[in-house]
Amino acid sequence: MILTVTLNAALDLTYHVPALRPHATHRVTDVAQRPGGKGLNVARVLAALGHEVTATGFAGGATGAVVRQLLGAVPGVTDGLLPVSGPTRRTVAVVDALSGDTTQLNEPGPLITPAEWSAFQEAYEGLVADADAVALCGSLPPGVPVGAYAALIRSARAAAVPVLLDTSGEPLRRAVAARPDVIKPNAAELAELTGSHEPLKATQDARRRGAQAVVASLGPQGLLAATPEGRWHATPPARLPGNPTGAGDAVSAGLLSALVEDLPWPARLTRAVALSAATVLSPTAGDFDRAAYEELLARVSVTAA
Amino acid sequence: MILTVTLNAALDLTYHVPALRPHATHRVTDVAQRPGGKGLNVARVLAALGHEVTATGFAGGATGAVVRQLLGAVPGVTDGLLPVSGPTRRTVAVVDALSGDTTQLNEPGPLITPAEWSAFQEAYEGLVADADAVALCGSLPPGVPVGAYAALIRSARAAAVPVLLDTSGEPLRRAVAARPDVIKPNAAELAELTGSHEPLKATQDARRRGAQAVVASLGPQGLLAATPEGRWHATPPARLPGNPTGAGDAVSAGLLSALVEDLPWPARLTRAVALSAATVLSPTAGDFDRAAYEELLARVSVTAA
Repeated sequence: MILTVTLNAALDLTYHVPALRPHATHRVTDVAQRPGGKGLNVARVLAALGHEVTATGFAGGATGAVVRQLLGAVPGVTDGLLPVSGPTRRTVAVVDALSGDTTQLNEPGPLITPAEWSAFQEAYEGLVADADAVALCGSLPPGVPVGAYAALIRSARAAAVPVLLDTSGEPLRRAVAARPDVIKPNAAELAELTGSHEPLKATQDARRRGAQAVVASLGPQGLLAATPEGRWHATPPARLPGNPTGAGDAVSAGLLSALVEDLPWPARLTRAVALSAATVLSPTAGDFDRAAYEELLARVSVTAA
Repeated sequence: MILTVTLNAALDLTYHVPALRPHATHRVTDVAQRPGGKGLNVARVLAALGHEVTATGFAGGATGAVVRQLLGAVPGVTDGLLPVSGPTRRTVAVVDALSGDTTQLNEPGPLITPAEWSAFQEAYEGLVADADAVALCGSLPPGVPVGAYAALIRSARAAAVPVLLDTSGEPLRRAVAARPDVIKPNAAELAELTGSHEPLKATQDARRRGAQAVVASLGPQGLLAATPEGRWHATPPARLPGNPTGAGDAVSAGLLSALVEDLPWPARLTRAVALSAATVLSPTAGDFDRAAYEELLARVSVTAA
């Protein structure tokens, strides 16, 4: 079982409008909703790849109930969310019909009480004991200590369970020192962590700070990985048209599934890039196009960096 | 009891952001939610004025459950919403912190089935029999026939219960022919109905089309009323700074409460303008400032038009 942690789960709403104009009134032509937060997105992709997944984190209020109901309908994902008193947040993605550009509005998330955070840590210890790998993903809701991910990484390492971490800012900085197996920053997050805007230098610097492997996502330029086994640059065959929503979560799912399957690093990166590209190509934001994924696997280029 | 009808009820979300920028990601700093749709807003103001109110219409799904829960907490309002299979819509008002300008995103609302519409009409007949007045407010959700308000007006008139109507477009055009006691269009809605952009001419034309009284809301310029008892222009003492959200619903509540209290037209218009102005002045969108309301009552000007 792979365990995904989503401390700030969300109900993701997608609104289609002809064009977003500030200070105007818009009739939304199409509404879609689904469980969100990076960890739940990763869980969905892992399950689609055939892995057994348990999704933990927090869910509360009426919005949390909808998230759990929708999550319950995803085959292969076990709902391990803990109830909390505060309401789960919503995110709203407003998509312009013509340009496809997206405007994002993210609610802050519920206030987690100290008792709720303690209850989570206890539940997490139990789940980690049965896990082959752990994904820690996304922002922290109010009330969760900024060192939360560092503590969760130490618990997993004590149980000899590998950890992938995808977060940013101070939670990332604190967590790197706890020696996660893989971090997956984008270029901006990596620059913020290391102070360097030169990706090759920055990935190596992030390893010196504690991360055992660093996989930097460079958008359409693919992935740059610095690992104990070597450094690689993995790129898709071409710049792909489409919606990048969820592409980063597809990278996390690709890396973690391939790690659990004991694939070598170049194969992990190939899978991550192919999944990410197949997500961009999919007409549904955050899902991947399976035929494109399988076709892309043969066309990803991995070179020494 | 005053009956308010909200066929397209909503959960109104208000998001505060520093400034809305298309195609950027925003952390929402503050979230508020409350029952929405014009008829539920009118019900809340009527209850605050001391009237007993029953709020009917449709509610469905998880969002409908939240609307009912929040409505249950409003003193003086009885929840008469009918359950439907489709989910109640959300509306999102994104408020720029600096300018106070609002960008509005409105979901379309659930599809109402013919059986649900029939069930509503039956329930409405029973409620109208006990009502002193009826407010029919807002847009029609998908599935409700465009002549819906005309049918509801005819039922109320058959029971000798006065009706105020606040809607727009084709539902307004159809309903006017059924001779509602009061319609409350804004300048744009009135121009669309009559083809005239000259308010005095347009209000008289709307009366000829069937409305017994027409109260046109002219924004900061107050109200222009054409009634069987005469024509008046009612204006607030000054142009007021603030948020006009809910000001139109305050006008409806002012007119209807004063009608039930058998006040003459000038007093109805005074109340409506004072309530509307006190709503603009309130720091909470859609609520009215009671002290300002009582003070404004003495300062509204009503002149023959």
